[in-house]
Amino acid sequence: MNNKKEKTREYILEKSSQLFSEKGFKEVTMKDICEVTGLSRGGLYSHFSSTREVFEALLERITSEDEFDIEEEIKKGSSAVEILNASLTRIRKEIEKPEESLSIAIYEYAQANDSKEIVRLNQRAEEKWSKLIRYGIEQGEFKKVNVNEMVSVILYSYQGVRMWSKIMPIKKNTAIQITNNIKNQLIIK
Amino acid sequence: MNNKKEKTREYILEKSSQLFSEKGFKEVTMKDICEVTGLSRGGLYSHFSSTREVFEALLERITSEDEFDIEEEIKKGSSAVEILNASLTRIRKEIEKPEESLSIAIYEYAQANDSKEIVRLNQRAEEKWSKLIRYGIEQGEFKKVNVNEMVSVILYSYQGVRMWSKIMPIKKNTAIQITNNIKNQLIIK
Repeated sequence: MNNKKEKTREYILEKSSQLFSEKGFKEVTMKDICEVTGLSRGGLYSHFSSTREVFEALLERITSEDEFDIEEEIKKGSSAVEILNASLTRIRKEIEKPEESLSIAIYEYAQANDSKEIVRLNQRAEEKWSKLIRYGIEQGEFKKVNVNEMVSVILYSYQGVRMWSKIMPIKKNTAIQITNNIKNQLIIK
Repeated sequence: MNNKKEKTREYILEKSSQLFSEKGFKEVTMKDICEVTGLSRGGLYSHFSSTREVFEALLERITSEDEFDIEEEIKKGSSAVEILNASLTRIRKEIEKPEESLSIAIYEYAQANDSKEIVRLNQRAEEKWSKLIRYGIEQGEFKKVNVNEMVSVILYSYQGVRMWSKIMPIKKNTAIQITNNIKNQLIIK
């Protein structure tokens, strides 16, 4: 894909991300995306043929960036504790800014479409966390925990707070309590 | 409230509970509740004036029953481990039967109304779990964990799985992994 086309595509994803976090998935139309991007209908459709395609490209990008960051750090031989802290801080910041979270959009997307894509992304998130935890154990920085149990607790406690933060004010320290609990379970003092 | 009126009220809540777990909150009308209960419009309205009232009565009942069970067991001086196992088993069974869960309805209800009621119920759930964990620590059955951290992890990992189990197939062992993690964090071997 040539550079200009790629730039436009990135711009569409960036602008759509704001739309989806504000309005969820159901309510966003291709017309809305034309408006926020200033693209003509033809211009937008030369990149994406539906809001579903835009949203799936967005999820794919978020997931890959996330995976890439952790892969890179592990390759660099960075400290597992530092990688964990960075990941948990990202999570905490997202929980503290529900208005920027895509949770509801992901939720509506999954209700509107088959769950194949969500299952695939969820598996990748599981693999990413498993890799980090196993790396920490190999490095002697993490306790020899049950990796699958830890991954489930990390993914779902986070998802739980993300979803609920959209419908009720979550105490600021809830996110901190959960990330502290995960750190205490993993990190060897 | 006299016995017959009370019985009818219970019957309405029971039948409505099935409706709400199938259809969520938004889509359920008072007419639907008349149909499933076989009550006349007048009959139903003599008990509840809106689906919101029915749903709030339902949430109130579920929460009180739950609190009552734990209070009773603690009064009886039952083992904290047994109470914990019973509570976690209830949670696991609900996670394994998403079709009977009210999660989506609760979610839609909270989006449609102010979050006061949900915040109140959430606080009661927090108090219930805090009470059980403190009891277990006093009894010398539980480790001296950070109670608030444990409560947040229990409530939100459970909520996370509940919500996601509605939109994607959750591996059966996810619920078991989470409850195992909670048990291992709490119970002194």
